[in-house]
Amino acid sequence: MTIPVDIAALGARAAAMIEQLGAISSAPDNLTRLFLTPEHRRAADLVARWMGEAGLAVSEDALGTVRGAWHPAGPDAPRLLIGSHIDTVVNAGKYDGALGVILGILAVEAVARGGLTPGYGIDVLAFGDEEGTRFPTTLSSSAACAGVFLPASLAAMDGEGISLAEALRAYGKTPDDIATSAYDPSRVIAYVEAHIEQGPVLEAEDAPLGIVTAIAGASRLSITVTGEAGHAGTVPMRLRRDALAGAAEMALAVERIARAGTDGMVATVGRMHVEPGSVNVIPARVVFTVDLRSASDASRRAALTRFEADAHRIAEQRGLGVVISAFHEVATVPCYHDIQRRLGDAVASLGARAPLLPSGAGHDGQAMAKLCPVGMLFVRCKGGISHNPAEYASPGDMGMAAAALIRFIERFQQPHYNGGTSGAQT
Amino acid sequence: MTIPVDIAALGARAAAMIEQLGAISSAPDNLTRLFLTPEHRRAADLVARWMGEAGLAVSEDALGTVRGAWHPAGPDAPRLLIGSHIDTVVNAGKYDGALGVILGILAVEAVARGGLTPGYGIDVLAFGDEEGTRFPTTLSSSAACAGVFLPASLAAMDGEGISLAEALRAYGKTPDDIATSAYDPSRVIAYVEAHIEQGPVLEAEDAPLGIVTAIAGASRLSITVTGEAGHAGTVPMRLRRDALAGAAEMALAVERIARAGTDGMVATVGRMHVEPGSVNVIPARVVFTVDLRSASDASRRAALTRFEADAHRIAEQRGLGVVISAFHEVATVPCYHDIQRRLGDAVASLGARAPLLPSGAGHDGQAMAKLCPVGMLFVRCKGGISHNPAEYASPGDMGMAAAALIRFIERFQQPHYNGGTSGAQT
Repeated sequence: MTIPVDIAALGARAAAMIEQLGAISSAPDNLTRLFLTPEHRRAADLVARWMGEAGLAVSEDALGTVRGAWHPAGPDAPRLLIGSHIDTVVNAGKYDGALGVILGILAVEAVARGGLTPGYGIDVLAFGDEEGTRFPTTLSSSAACAGVFLPASLAAMDGEGISLAEALRAYGKTPDDIATSAYDPSRVIAYVEAHIEQGPVLEAEDAPLGIVTAIAGASRLSITVTGEAGHAGTVPMRLRRDALAGAAEMALAVERIARAGTDGMVATVGRMHVEPGSVNVIPARVVFTVDLRSASDASRRAALTRFEADAHRIAEQRGLGVVISAFHEVATVPCYHDIQRRLGDAVASLGARAPLLPSGAGHDGQAMAKLCPVGMLFVRCKGGISHNPAEYASPGDMGMAAAALIRFIERFQQPHYNGGTSGAQT
Repeated sequence: MTIPVDIAALGARAAAMIEQLGAISSAPDNLTRLFLTPEHRRAADLVARWMGEAGLAVSEDALGTVRGAWHPAGPDAPRLLIGSHIDTVVNAGKYDGALGVILGILAVEAVARGGLTPGYGIDVLAFGDEEGTRFPTTLSSSAACAGVFLPASLAAMDGEGISLAEALRAYGKTPDDIATSAYDPSRVIAYVEAHIEQGPVLEAEDAPLGIVTAIAGASRLSITVTGEAGHAGTVPMRLRRDALAGAAEMALAVERIARAGTDGMVATVGRMHVEPGSVNVIPARVVFTVDLRSASDASRRAALTRFEADAHRIAEQRGLGVVISAFHEVATVPCYHDIQRRLGDAVASLGARAPLLPSGAGHDGQAMAKLCPVGMLFVRCKGGISHNPAEYASPGDMGMAAAALIRFIERFQQPHYNGGTSGAQT
């Protein structure tokens, strides 16, 4: 059956809910809503109220994830999970995370009210720890749902010396219950998340929605280049060992590698520290970072190998030392092909075109992929701006995204894959 | 006549004097001797004692410059000035400045004791403000001798809020007397200074001494490159406006220009500040410095023009903004050809080879050139290291330099140029 959708009305409701949720903040003049704080509680309560009004059965798990259940085929039927997060960074935008929760509620409400009776159930999930702002952990709430929560992270401390375990207890939770928050993989079909793009691609392509091919893996390197300090006036060019000139050449090398790379590869040199840092002294030491991402681990690894070779060649040609250390490594999570296809069909049924693109940012899907196949729908965001009060998605685009989720749910009645399969690609 | 010289003995005396002067410091564990401090007073007194022991008539001018006069042809005969400075940077080496004063005293003592009776006199000068460490002024003492002292600099403040005028009074001087410290140009033949090279050229050329062709002019630029911040993972390479990548390309452009440059051109990017400076954010703004020097103002200006064109081209190609501002500009001071030739002849008479090289560092000769022709003799320094406790010149090289000054003075009896000519090149 085809549920009637009113995109403008869905968009207007989403926009109103975004404003309502975005008003819950610990700061008077900006949006800051951290994991397990009083603001998290208030946001969770608001989401629970919305879920209840939408006809969902509301519960909350041991990590504070709000769950809204619609189980028309009974509690034992396999489930489609739709979710996102309600925590924010400091001085955040209102759409990051919140939009995916709101769109999930609107879509499930529409299909339930529309009389759809699928052979599976849907849980809408509102996670509380995606940004990793309060504790030096991230994705702990989706990890608990996926059954891969690391007990060691209970000892993680926030900036005020409060451990995650203490914060959970203060929130009314019992860390011992975390294991019971894990879904049974055999009962889960897939996890689907709608999220603002947080980048400029859809805007540049003039498309309201996009289908995510993969959540890009990331490698972060710290590169230390050592040369020799010297007087800026007295050391001839041929006798110099200038660490900054070498670092500049390496920065351009990694940019060249990423430009030539495949799978949406991007590379960023975000920090560069120069010593001694005087206008009239040849730099003796430069430390800079490289953040390299790609929707394919193989292409990212190949790029890292090329960069290391380039950096060592540049150092050798210039008589410099170079030490490269990796301090962060996250594997790529491919989105399930069949979900990509079905999301694309849903968007196409609305008369829109949904470009395929990787997600360069991290998402709860990285944890949920340990449980089940994952898929993501991106919503165009203005100027590609995110993690910023200027973050914005239009009501029209949000309405289109809600409609696409509705069409996706309609089409999801005969999934080609069994519940409980891994996230491995077909 | 030819004065007998004992290079080893001269070198041993110079080394002993370097140690004695180098022991006068405001810091217990390093050499720091700033303008118009008690340590300056003690150093000036030691230099005055040495001058007296060498048979010179000692006086001190209104800026504290110690003057040792040897006037065999009477007080009205034209004078050759030989000098350097006795102030230091913080945590200094013992040779920078001090060596030139000591070599001047040793050379004049030798020619006076050796019975030379030239038709001109010699003043040995020990300036007190070459490094510009205490006050945001530099070369104020040589400027006073040259008659180009700027009265406005009397208001310059040191780090403790003491003005130069106050410091002079505390040192027992009267600012009103500064004008009387100026030499009469018609009575001055030339200014000659011996100094450690502060660079690695003579060591690389295996030469104890070098003849300076010019004190290189310097331009210092501050370059601000503006792009657009963005998420390191979500903005494709083709949509980026990365300020750091642009700055890296500009830094390599100025390096390339200097390598291809003439007249001993050198360029240094010594500082680079990246904003926001996060590993996962595309840099929005980079500010870096360029220090460009050359022994020819024309080649330096041409290089600046090339760099500006390159920087604007790079910015345009990358969609970046760039603002270049010059915050320091010092013209090249060519050393007088005839003095270069005579210094070279003096070194050659000792059986040594003296390469020609520009001085990339600044010297009192830059002020003295306003008064008279200038020339400089460089002494090899170990590893090219200066402004550092590891600064070192060997007794053998210092003895050779003293002997070269003696031979230079002998040959200076019939100068080809009149006293009081400008520093313009023949």
